[in-house]
Amino acid sequence: MFALTILGNNSAIPAFDRNPTAQVLQTMDESFLIDCGEGTQMQFSKYKVKRSKINHIFISHLHGDHYFGLIGLLTSMSLLNRTQDLHLHAPPELEQLVDLQLKFAATNLSYPLHFHPLKEEGIIVEGNKITVECFKVKHRIDCWGFLFKEKRNLRKVNAERAKIYEIPASFYEKLQQGFDYANKKGTIVPNDEVTVPGQKVKSYAYCADTIYDESLAEKVKDVDLLYHETTYLKNLHERAAARFHSTTEQAANIAKKAGAKKLLIGHFSSKYESLDEFLQKRLRFLKIRNWRYREAVISFSHLALSH
Amino acid sequence: MFALTILGNNSAIPAFDRNPTAQVLQTMDESFLIDCGEGTQMQFSKYKVKRSKINHIFISHLHGDHYFGLIGLLTSMSLLNRTQDLHLHAPPELEQLVDLQLKFAATNLSYPLHFHPLKEEGIIVEGNKITVECFKVKHRIDCWGFLFKEKRNLRKVNAERAKIYEIPASFYEKLQQGFDYANKKGTIVPNDEVTVPGQKVKSYAYCADTIYDESLAEKVKDVDLLYHETTYLKNLHERAAARFHSTTEQAANIAKKAGAKKLLIGHFSSKYESLDEFLQKRLRFLKIRNWRYREAVISFSHLALSH
Repeated sequence: MFALTILGNNSAIPAFDRNPTAQVLQTMDESFLIDCGEGTQMQFSKYKVKRSKINHIFISHLHGDHYFGLIGLLTSMSLLNRTQDLHLHAPPELEQLVDLQLKFAATNLSYPLHFHPLKEEGIIVEGNKITVECFKVKHRIDCWGFLFKEKRNLRKVNAERAKIYEIPASFYEKLQQGFDYANKKGTIVPNDEVTVPGQKVKSYAYCADTIYDESLAEKVKDVDLLYHETTYLKNLHERAAARFHSTTEQAANIAKKAGAKKLLIGHFSSKYESLDEFLQKRLRFLKIRNWRYREAVISFSHLALSH
Repeated sequence: MFALTILGNNSAIPAFDRNPTAQVLQTMDESFLIDCGEGTQMQFSKYKVKRSKINHIFISHLHGDHYFGLIGLLTSMSLLNRTQDLHLHAPPELEQLVDLQLKFAATNLSYPLHFHPLKEEGIIVEGNKITVECFKVKHRIDCWGFLFKEKRNLRKVNAERAKIYEIPASFYEKLQQGFDYANKKGTIVPNDEVTVPGQKVKSYAYCADTIYDESLAEKVKDVDLLYHETTYLKNLHERAAARFHSTTEQAANIAKKAGAKKLLIGHFSSKYESLDEFLQKRLRFLKIRNWRYREAVISFSHLALSH
């Protein structure tokens, strides 16, 4: 499983039942929370997200619509007697705020909270099945994107064929990793004789809040799903630039340049009550430019990238 | 108008669609926001509360379920280009938190925010039509209650009778204030010959989070509506005391001792999915003890204290 759930897709002010930014990337083992606007923990109930599966939280930047729900979530986890470690990856200044809020409430968390300040681009989480990298994006204040990549999936052993070649079960782990088998006589059994490829690995890039910046495409090259903000429609591109935000067309351009397979848009301005135009624009792009992107997902959604 | 809207009535963790504490007291001229748990600004939309009518915000204490929604509201007001002054009455430590959050977001508010630290009991707002007093309650950390009182309503002039006595219209304001009229001949027209009493003034006491404390009754003596927390039912009175909270029966006792006309309960523990038992307990109290309280209001409600 490698599935994304959008808990909030509005910018700045909650409006029209759209919450500020928060997303959860769910894998079989654990979930990753990306940004945490006000009300995120209430969205957890609505979208059946389990707090207990979250071990890593990523905060892109310190504009309130991306983190004002964090402290509530951290304290709720403690009130629910969480004991497992929690890792918080965020701009350095956030640590002071969290510490002060806990101090003023005379609260000690029930679990170890590990603060990892975002300082330079590179791998920040190296899990069993996933790596997470952070990269800089251009916004009014320091801001970070996050790239989630499944690790290479193991090959699947065809047990029937492995038996024909008299390969012992103790060697199956090596087969999964792609090794050939050499029997006692020195005969080599090529790996692909007895295995099939594992499932294709998936990747997801979250670009947070950003001005239109073509250098971003290189950082998220060939990603399966690209989230790029589209605070405004094309006609407001000047306002977008002045506020270090992007338009729908600009998001599409980045996705195209990056060779992303899917584009997810969001961070819609509260000036738009309906999101229909965002959808229409996407369709126009698809038609006129012969886009190969299959989807631009709008609004709340659970987006499973197959398997 | 002197009406209370409950935006959140749950304690600690948002649960079962119950939000953390927030209430709005609405008068004809302006509204007063009392505590501001996470998600309060979203509740504003749901319950048609106008941000622009709020000039005073009161924060009882720095446990997150009473103020984690504040910073989001303050920044939203700014994003909506508020210009009128806003007064924040809160424990002194809150100022540092608000300042840091604005600094990290590189944000200047669009309006003047006046911070009034709660330090001693007494009048903290002296409005045209309302006074607000703060008083200490006993909780795990410093905690304040708030008492809202309408000012004495002006008497109503009976214009027909005033004409009979040849009282000039320029003297009507004095009549409203209760003065007698002396005509040129020195004859006194007693005030109640030409006026009738104004509407009865109303009062509301918000006791925030508190352990059972009988001295509270004196502070909220004869109030029209008393809000007293009831985090737990009676059988958990030991847990309530250990956590500086109260039970339904204890809230009822305070209301009775204070001579309050109505009791409003809230701050329900997340352990209770249903609030039925709170309601049943109240009914039992009413029956057995021959209570004169007409109502104990549970859950979200708009509570107009007549006029």
